[in-house]
Amino acid sequence: MPGASVGVGGVGVTTPHGYRASGSSAGIKANNGLDLALLVSDVPATAAAVFTTNRAQAAPILVSREHLSASGGVARAIVVNSGCANACTGDDGLRAARDMAAETARLVGCSVAEVLVASTGVIGVALPIDKIRLALPAAVDGLAIDQGPMAARAIMTTDPFPKQAAAELQIGGRTVRIGGMAKGSGMIEPMLATMLGFVTTDADVPQPLLARALREAVDDSFNAITVDGECSTNDSVMLLANGASGASINVGNYDAFVGGLHAVCRELALGIVRGGEGATKLVTVTVTGAASASDARRAAKAIANSLLVKTAIHGGDPNWGRLIAVAGRANVAFELSRATVMIGATTLFRNGRPYDDAAPEAAEYLKGTEITLTVGLGAGSASSTVWTCDLSAEYVRINAEYRT
Amino acid sequence: MPGASVGVGGVGVTTPHGYRASGSSAGIKANNGLDLALLVSDVPATAAAVFTTNRAQAAPILVSREHLSASGGVARAIVVNSGCANACTGDDGLRAARDMAAETARLVGCSVAEVLVASTGVIGVALPIDKIRLALPAAVDGLAIDQGPMAARAIMTTDPFPKQAAAELQIGGRTVRIGGMAKGSGMIEPMLATMLGFVTTDADVPQPLLARALREAVDDSFNAITVDGECSTNDSVMLLANGASGASINVGNYDAFVGGLHAVCRELALGIVRGGEGATKLVTVTVTGAASASDARRAAKAIANSLLVKTAIHGGDPNWGRLIAVAGRANVAFELSRATVMIGATTLFRNGRPYDDAAPEAAEYLKGTEITLTVGLGAGSASSTVWTCDLSAEYVRINAEYRT
Repeated sequence: MPGASVGVGGVGVTTPHGYRASGSSAGIKANNGLDLALLVSDVPATAAAVFTTNRAQAAPILVSREHLSASGGVARAIVVNSGCANACTGDDGLRAARDMAAETARLVGCSVAEVLVASTGVIGVALPIDKIRLALPAAVDGLAIDQGPMAARAIMTTDPFPKQAAAELQIGGRTVRIGGMAKGSGMIEPMLATMLGFVTTDADVPQPLLARALREAVDDSFNAITVDGECSTNDSVMLLANGASGASINVGNYDAFVGGLHAVCRELALGIVRGGEGATKLVTVTVTGAASASDARRAAKAIANSLLVKTAIHGGDPNWGRLIAVAGRANVAFELSRATVMIGATTLFRNGRPYDDAAPEAAEYLKGTEITLTVGLGAGSASSTVWTCDLSAEYVRINAEYRT
Repeated sequence: MPGASVGVGGVGVTTPHGYRASGSSAGIKANNGLDLALLVSDVPATAAAVFTTNRAQAAPILVSREHLSASGGVARAIVVNSGCANACTGDDGLRAARDMAAETARLVGCSVAEVLVASTGVIGVALPIDKIRLALPAAVDGLAIDQGPMAARAIMTTDPFPKQAAAELQIGGRTVRIGGMAKGSGMIEPMLATMLGFVTTDADVPQPLLARALREAVDDSFNAITVDGECSTNDSVMLLANGASGASINVGNYDAFVGGLHAVCRELALGIVRGGEGATKLVTVTVTGAASASDARRAAKAIANSLLVKTAIHGGDPNWGRLIAVAGRANVAFELSRATVMIGATTLFRNGRPYDDAAPEAAEYLKGTEITLTVGLGAGSASSTVWTCDLSAEYVRINAEYRT
């Protein structure tokens, strides 16, 4: 999907009021690419975050967790570098992540605990903290409300395009803005990995409600996508709420707020899938008729991660048998005699029998770039949707030829 | 691995005494390829089998289960067709599988319950039972002790070479033979799927002991390999023991028997991996330092199924970071500070720190075609080994271009 883009320039983390950002080069990446992003709220913001479940947690994850805990969920700044993941780097890496936060805090004028850090890039290589220290003053000087797009570029590694999105809501007669940026193409390079998401809002949100909203929004967006089934050492999604709009979120208007937050997170997450390495199609996998929501999600993920499904979609082949076979092995309740498979709006299997006459129609549909697969498990009424991309020889080429 | 082969010609299912086999063409495959295999024991044999855990079970699986149960674990014949999986074919498919067994029983001169059936090939297409019925008399006429290799060819679908293996043991002063054949290259074609294994022995083995021996042998062979993480609707491994050697297996010599059975199953299973679609390397993944055996197996399978690991090995890239990242996300106990990664005999990560100086040595080793990866989880003392192959662009090409 060359040229695909989510959101428009300038519509991102600095769209909500009271935020400034910058994107600059610290010299971590070769040939002076943008590799240092800074995001600052004018006033202390309520903060929430979700982190990778990978047990090999990178140093910036450990430090950001500590700081969120020490500050009671308050942050002024997020500092991010690309080009080096600072993962599997031991005590030296931990020290470097702390230094990166401390230097940012000094320059911004806040406490160290009010700074969150994130890194993405090569695993197992020492973070060049001296380069970051030297670059930070200019990064702070460059902070501006129109520099969100530069920050979105500075967090990229192998991403083919920056991912930004924003939404506006009316809450209690006031306009609330939510904006975000993200990076990642799946964990597509061994060492240039990681999904990162940074979302801002100018609503005022109590911390427990903010944390809950983030969990809910992430569950059906960042947690519902997969490129290659991998989960990196550095995945993070961070959310700041600074109250600059004057609107306060409470249980009465919570649903509206989560709706907007979910829309922004979903757009960012779909951007990651569209930019998946070698991807040529965005694939929406919906599982219905599941015995439980967790069964539905599990089956949908199994289908979305199946090499056979992803290669069939890439080749435009309406192989409903692959979908049935994956649903059958997904370790969920499944009744073959009541199962269904649809590719787009075309039914290819229902009530235990094939409808192969419809294959040409499905093959025609598969020539498109936005594909929907629907599999009914015949075991209940729960459903779930996840998003993935197709698997091309280009993915293999890129990941096999890394470093060579 | 062009030209790779397991076992030698004539050393397979008819190596044990008292078995005859044939391989012929029933016209199921295009251009009259071999597609009908028959294996008959001269006398009723004790029988055991393990079947796919896929919940979309093909008709021959259902029928073989029924027959094993009805006969109390006795079989005279196994009849197998390739070119059509007889899966997702509803009641008609079930009838066709029963007819295939009944016609074989009539010609061989045994009860229907003493015939096991297996199919492999296209899913969702009706089994051409009339063609099979017409071809069976010649298949029975052709039964001979030197036709094992033809049977091994007749069960192939996309396999690049037939898989056969045999072993001889001395038990109680008598020679016991174990022989087998297998097919499969992972579930590499949507519809031309399935792993099948057929093993014979001329030992006399009580049914409960035979069933236990098969489960144990399969666990560290057929169940310890993966090409693409898929599991078909038709997977089966069947074992016959006809007592023709005069040796009886009991608890006293059970371990020796299982040892031989395991060796045959392992050689057949490794043949499947070597013949995996697009495979250029056989990869042995050993996980050590696990908190439990199930953790060890789970982590080893996660590594063996990781696209990033498989593409790195294909490209000869010693990316230890990919191995750590997969171990960390495998949902097993994992201690980064005590974790280790070895590629061949080269340590690249130990006690929380990288040894990148050793990368060139590991890169040199990865130029070979038999690769060992060892990952220590640092969480205990259990270990497990699984086998896989690398992932090449050829795999994607074949699976994307099917039918086109």
